[in-house]
Amino acid sequence: MSNEESVKYVSIIGATGYVGAELVRGFAGHPFFRFRHLTSQSFAGKPYSSIYPEFRGVVDNICEELDPEEAAKDSDLVITALPHGVSAKIVPALLAAGAKVIDHSGDFRYKDLATYEKSYSLTHPNPELLETAVYGLPEFYREELKTASLVANPGCYPTCSLIALAPFLKAHLIEEDSIIIDATSGVSGAGRKADLAYAFCELDESFKPYGAVGHRHTTEISEQCSFLAGKRSGDIKVTFTPHLAPFKRGMLASIYAKPSAAFSSVSSEKINEIYSNFYKDEAFVRVLPGKTLPDIKAVACSNYIDVNGLFDPETGIIKLFSAQDNLGKGAALQAIQAANIMFGFDETSGLKNIVRGI
Amino acid sequence: MSNEESVKYVSIIGATGYVGAELVRGFAGHPFFRFRHLTSQSFAGKPYSSIYPEFRGVVDNICEELDPEEAAKDSDLVITALPHGVSAKIVPALLAAGAKVIDHSGDFRYKDLATYEKSYSLTHPNPELLETAVYGLPEFYREELKTASLVANPGCYPTCSLIALAPFLKAHLIEEDSIIIDATSGVSGAGRKADLAYAFCELDESFKPYGAVGHRHTTEISEQCSFLAGKRSGDIKVTFTPHLAPFKRGMLASIYAKPSAAFSSVSSEKINEIYSNFYKDEAFVRVLPGKTLPDIKAVACSNYIDVNGLFDPETGIIKLFSAQDNLGKGAALQAIQAANIMFGFDETSGLKNIVRGI
Amino acid sequence: MSNEESVKYVSIIGATGYVGAELVRGFAGHPFFRFRHLTSQSFAGKPYSSIYPEFRGVVDNICEELDPEEAAKDSDLVITALPHGVSAKIVPALLAAGAKVIDHSGDFRYKDLATYEKSYSLTHPNPELLETAVYGLPEFYREELKTASLVANPGCYPTCSLIALAPFLKAHLIEEDSIIIDATSGVSGAGRKADLAYAFCELDESFKPYGAVGHRHTTEISEQCSFLAGKRSGDIKVTFTPHLAPFKRGMLASIYAKPSAAFSSVSSEKINEIYSNFYKDEAFVRVLPGKTLPDIKAVACSNYIDVNGLFDPETGIIKLFSAQDNLGKGAALQAIQAANIMFGFDETSGLKNIVRGI
Amino acid sequence: MSNEESVKYVSIIGATGYVGAELVRGFAGHPFFRFRHLTSQSFAGKPYSSIYPEFRGVVDNICEELDPEEAAKDSDLVITALPHGVSAKIVPALLAAGAKVIDHSGDFRYKDLATYEKSYSLTHPNPELLETAVYGLPEFYREELKTASLVANPGCYPTCSLIALAPFLKAHLIEEDSIIIDATSGVSGAGRKADLAYAFCELDESFKPYGAVGHRHTTEISEQCSFLAGKRSGDIKVTFTPHLAPFKRGMLASIYAKPSAAFSSVSSEKINEIYSNFYKDEAFVRVLPGKTLPDIKAVACSNYIDVNGLFDPETGIIKLFSAQDNLGKGAALQAIQAANIMFGFDETSGLKNIVRGI
Repeated sequence: MSNEESVKYVSIIGATGYVGAELVRGFAGHPFFRFRHLTSQSFAGKPYSSIYPEFRGVVDNICEELDPEEAAKDSDLVITALPHGVSAKIVPALLAAGAKVIDHSGDFRYKDLATYEKSYSLTHPNPELLETAVYGLPEFYREELKTASLVANPGCYPTCSLIALAPFLKAHLIEEDSIIIDATSGVSGAGRKADLAYAFCELDESFKPYGAVGHRHTTEISEQCSFLAGKRSGDIKVTFTPHLAPFKRGMLASIYAKPSAAFSSVSSEKINEIYSNFYKDEAFVRVLPGKTLPDIKAVACSNYIDVNGLFDPETGIIKLFSAQDNLGKGAALQAIQAANIMFGFDETSGLKNIVRGI
Repeated sequence: MSNEESVKYVSIIGATGYVGAELVRGFAGHPFFRFRHLTSQSFAGKPYSSIYPEFRGVVDNICEELDPEEAAKDSDLVITALPHGVSAKIVPALLAAGAKVIDHSGDFRYKDLATYEKSYSLTHPNPELLETAVYGLPEFYREELKTASLVANPGCYPTCSLIALAPFLKAHLIEEDSIIIDATSGVSGAGRKADLAYAFCELDESFKPYGAVGHRHTTEISEQCSFLAGKRSGDIKVTFTPHLAPFKRGMLASIYAKPSAAFSSVSSEKINEIYSNFYKDEAFVRVLPGKTLPDIKAVACSNYIDVNGLFDPETGIIKLFSAQDNLGKGAALQAIQAANIMFGFDETSGLKNIVRGI
Repeated sequence: MSNEESVKYVSIIGATGYVGAELVRGFAGHPFFRFRHLTSQSFAGKPYSSIYPEFRGVVDNICEELDPEEAAKDSDLVITALPHGVSAKIVPALLAAGAKVIDHSGDFRYKDLATYEKSYSLTHPNPELLETAVYGLPEFYREELKTASLVANPGCYPTCSLIALAPFLKAHLIEEDSIIIDATSGVSGAGRKADLAYAFCELDESFKPYGAVGHRHTTEISEQCSFLAGKRSGDIKVTFTPHLAPFKRGMLASIYAKPSAAFSSVSSEKINEIYSNFYKDEAFVRVLPGKTLPDIKAVACSNYIDVNGLFDPETGIIKLFSAQDNLGKGAALQAIQAANIMFGFDETSGLKNIVRGI
Repeated sequence: MSNEESVKYVSIIGATGYVGAELVRGFAGHPFFRFRHLTSQSFAGKPYSSIYPEFRGVVDNICEELDPEEAAKDSDLVITALPHGVSAKIVPALLAAGAKVIDHSGDFRYKDLATYEKSYSLTHPNPELLETAVYGLPEFYREELKTASLVANPGCYPTCSLIALAPFLKAHLIEEDSIIIDATSGVSGAGRKADLAYAFCELDESFKPYGAVGHRHTTEISEQCSFLAGKRSGDIKVTFTPHLAPFKRGMLASIYAKPSAAFSSVSSEKINEIYSNFYKDEAFVRVLPGKTLPDIKAVACSNYIDVNGLFDPETGIIKLFSAQDNLGKGAALQAIQAANIMFGFDETSGLKNIVRGI
């Protein structure tokens, strides 16, 4: 399957967080990538499999301290899974050393500097990179990814929301000021940390909204919605509420919008048909048949995102639903999908058969 | 605490379902009610505690076959936890035998017969009872409950939605055609039955919408919203989407609406203030302080319902949140609250200190 | 129910941990106790219900800094839920100020000083208290509790193990060197703390042994087994392995032993009969009928402990099973049972109907 | 990676149960096997991915009615995931049609007919096959598997128990009448069925023993223990207790035994060393380092089984621990490991990198 000549070397910065671990899982089974460096601030010097025992015998590499130049100079690709603010400082050095970079923070996801700085309460140290960075949603930016040197991996909620909304925004079938996104994430979205708020006894048998006004992903979704509709950043603003639910992996978006005047004879069947046409060539977007609605269970541990929608004739509201694994299509596996494109591999390499099953 | 003279006798029809079990739990600790009959189609002849071992030594009564007349003639109160359609046929006999009745089905919740019949695809055998039945939401129908002989215990989603919406509907502070209710229930809401759809391996680590168009509770919510706004059944229609999440007990409603012109200087603080004023005398509606949002964990096993709301200044949308235990305030414990009112007991009798804790 | 004259005042030291919260829940519904002080190192000055929102409207007392003398001087009972080592230093001051004390740490559970000091790697500052302290298992030390000033509330694993073993140890029906205890606890047993090891994503869908050799409860169990068999501390030694499982509350012990020569015609029926006779007057030990085995679900949130046993004729091994809520009978509610005895109240006061239900 | 000439065709009988689904997942990612028939009694005619939506776009084959001859005649390998009793009747036809067979029931696991018939309360219709069937534990029967036509895939509890016990039984290091196996399984072990006993609300937050005397796997473990020790079926009898815990996948065995006189200077280090030597060439048995104990989380969705042991110097008892995925190494993935051997493929083909990650 893999020709050793074509093999590329990847380093993961921040490899021991949950996104890092999913990157490790994904690349460990990839036919064309090999690990170069796995760095970890907390666990440098320890075998990766001592942090994540599931990787014993699979990935026993020793975690290293981060030295950006070292990491980049013998890597074809460096993936950063770092907090926002930190990425912005380190990424330029990685690029300078000649590696391609996929970044998981919010630091390079925006085109509009002011929106980023307001959303993250930070001054961007390298605002010029916002222009060259490609927003790593392959379904919308595939061409740009082919030549990208810096890719901003999308946020989990934005991926889930944008895949569901895109066909309707692009064709101007919904009223752009009517979008309400009610979304729910599994706990892994909060990352790996010692924090009472994410303790088992605090979250088991719990369910709640959080960050219900001003969550950072709101402006990221809004900006990309604007672009999808052919408008400028800030033109569309969405209402967004995230919730936290007691499962490890998975994210569901339930989206409400009013059909626009352009949407003639709206019906559930029509919504399904629009999805089917729009995503007919996409390997990872699965349009569910009929009125079947997505369940996070079906996408766990995979790069798939399942979508479908319904029309409520009583109130005239369109409901769109999408489900993904927040660590999969919502983070690490989407980054691998982008990496496949960046290096000219089949886009599904290493991703096609990864499903959790039961 | 209880004077044996004042004691009332309650019978529970359908005592071995999950709502039945919560009624049993609630009344078992009640100072003024004693059990007369616990009936169960499936388990007649067996001790209640052999079905629910948690009740061993607490409620060891023998389950009986249902004989409506027998059940009613020596009971002050009969509570029916039966499927819709079945209740409609049995309740008249219970009333005729002189008992007060609280019914958990949808059969007596509507004032508009056509809406009921369309929602439940049934012909109502006793439509005249729709008029006399009191909708058992004590916060809105307390006076009517005092003299009621037949109480229709509200649906779980309606309770959660109406408590959150009422202050704004009554004062006409939201646009009545803008209401979107996105709600999530624990699995006990589906009842106790052998059904693969509710098997542990099918639901653990899952999350999904269901009944996303046409769920029966939609019309129940809509009718009561209309009444709260001083309108006629059918005047207000809400958009409603229920979801199923992997926990046993609990329900959260996240509600979106546009403020009306009458809502001047809308803000999160104002929303909180409106809630605080509206519910200041209510024992079981807890308005959370500041911007604290409800969590189902905090209301588990109790009759409390926690509410709060926020205003999103970016989109001009009001977000209202409420959390309850779907078996508690959403079903059985609310019925006990109503029963307290019906029999002249302190409304909080037997309900005040029931919390699960951790 | 309660005559205000007979009311007693209780203070809880360490009220915001999980054991503290369960004490608060239990006493909040108690007819004869009222709270005096709830102290918390981390949350002094804050309302209790801001830490545990389930208690909003139920227990809104303000958490206080710990001042042992202040806490004790106007309290009839002080309950300490503090780490071992800390209790040993504070308890003498509480006793000196005239309060009765129930302590939840391991500091006063042993009669043999050397065993304590070895098990806890500590030098006991007040070893003389080991003699006067009563081991708070009401089923075995009811008489001593009536006059006790200092009660050492038993460990959770010891309670579960000893209740299951007692009838057989007392009657010398098992070989004393053959006892193997394989036990499993819910996560709340680890307490309330920000620790990655107890994070939701680390424990959901996990199951593992821990502290498999040398867990402190081993020596506590062994000492009490020796006493139950009429021997001296150290005479009996048990094999003990705890496991951690993904639920919040609950503990199950599966115990293996060989019948002794004195156990004639051993059978499952005989084991059940022995249990039934031994515990026939106990309100909180429920001997399950026939071959029904305990499930933690049935004892959640209660002070009940369910037991039963089987004989394996193929290997000649006796299997004993017991299930309790680790925070209930395994900790806080057992302390309330002891408190009832210490103050001359009915032993079941405030405890009889506390069950979680579904 | 795969040469299409070397490809083998596999059919799965009973493909829509949980073991069937895990077989489908495993073979879907296998480089050398292709599906021929997926049969399902309940879902014949439907796409596999309509039953398990996670397989949409991965395995969309149509489920077929079972026709043993048809299934076998164009398949190199047929895997049966059927109830015991049913397998015994169908397998001969599969073999007669020329396919190799791996069976998941208990029907061909025993060498001693009487033990099988007593354990399963059945008369075996083809007892002669017990002799030729190979017990499919590759670690012990690798040579036999190379030429086997009928393989009895081991039970989940037996696999977990035998891998942990083998090094000590083979070297006669434990007293053979002292073995106690206390094991816990996730819910998927019960299979896919509509049964109230396995409903979410019945099992979430529960934990209990079941089948505590006479569970069928007891005799299977006992027979294989006898063989490992070089004895005859029935010579060794183990004490075995299974428990059910609230997670989907995973199984842990905690095993107790007394060291024999032959086990000189027993210590935890020695136990670890024995394991390490015994399994040093095994790809899927991971001996954990030092005193690290297994956690089911680390083996989820994989064919790995993690083992380690400790010696308790206080009681002289050896504790052995093993963790596997009950559907993975405990069932379907172990069958794929056996299939690799049967067809001359690298034993780890398709299995090496399958881990769930977080």
